[in-house]
Amino acid sequence: MRNRDSIREKILNQPSYWVEGINSFLYNAILEYMEDNNMNRTELASHLGISKGRVSQILNDGEINFSIEKVVQIALKVNKFPVFELKDKNSYLDDLNSNNHKTKDLSYYENDSFSEVYSKNKKDSKIIHLYSNNEFTKQLAL
Amino acid sequence: MRNRDSIREKILNQPSYWVEGINSFLYNAILEYMEDNNMNRTELASHLGISKGRVSQILNDGEINFSIEKVVQIALKVNKFPVFELKDKNSYLDDLNSNNHKTKDLSYYENDSFSEVYSKNKKDSKIIHLYSNNEFTKQLAL
Repeated sequence: MRNRDSIREKILNQPSYWVEGINSFLYNAILEYMEDNNMNRTELASHLGISKGRVSQILNDGEINFSIEKVVQIALKVNKFPVFELKDKNSYLDDLNSNNHKTKDLSYYENDSFSEVYSKNKKDSKIIHLYSNNEFTKQLAL
Repeated sequence: MRNRDSIREKILNQPSYWVEGINSFLYNAILEYMEDNNMNRTELASHLGISKGRVSQILNDGEINFSIEKVVQIALKVNKFPVFELKDKNSYLDDLNSNNHKTKDLSYYENDSFSEVYSKNKKDSKIIHLYSNNEFTKQLAL
């Protein structure tokens, strides 16, 4: 178990873990908003105040390395409040590790935004769970 | 009360509310880290991997409009995990409004990161509560 804890700690200390999480939340929220409002990419670009090229980049690659300000603006425009907290590393890890060492509880991956999107279970949904097969999940499944 | 709720909703829909919140969290975390580790600005710049000019900009103005990636990197380097969530606007507002209409409970302003910094009550602390006198707090106090 010690070993798994240290793998978890290592993963949590990688910027890409958090950046991918944020990208994924935003990506899902944008797609959900498009679907709920029957928008095409042109309408979405206009609504978000970004270029059509940028929209394609987001929707094709899930790459959203915006500034903080832009992320906040986009979140608000797709009906979400962007709640950001800085958690003390040690207490955060203690909380995770004390939770029966369950692998699955790793914060982001079962967070409400993900489950929310999934629980809708739309047959025609274009929403992709970016994380389902990513490197972190693979590492954690070891 | 209706009126106060709608003021609150208006404020929460302003990007600057959230951006200032994130800036403030990061600003406090950086200062706390500097103090705890007896670092000067040059050492901090080197630790964070940013220029000394950028450090001065942060410490003098509290302006941190970095990219998501940079914010995540900085947070991890000052021993914090950057936990980001997108909350559905309506349920977030319902939660706030059902909470006895207390003005003070407005999410960010009594969030753990703020209180944490404050509860340390260091006499020589240079930590400034950016929000104590800002426009949002003023508006809410009306």
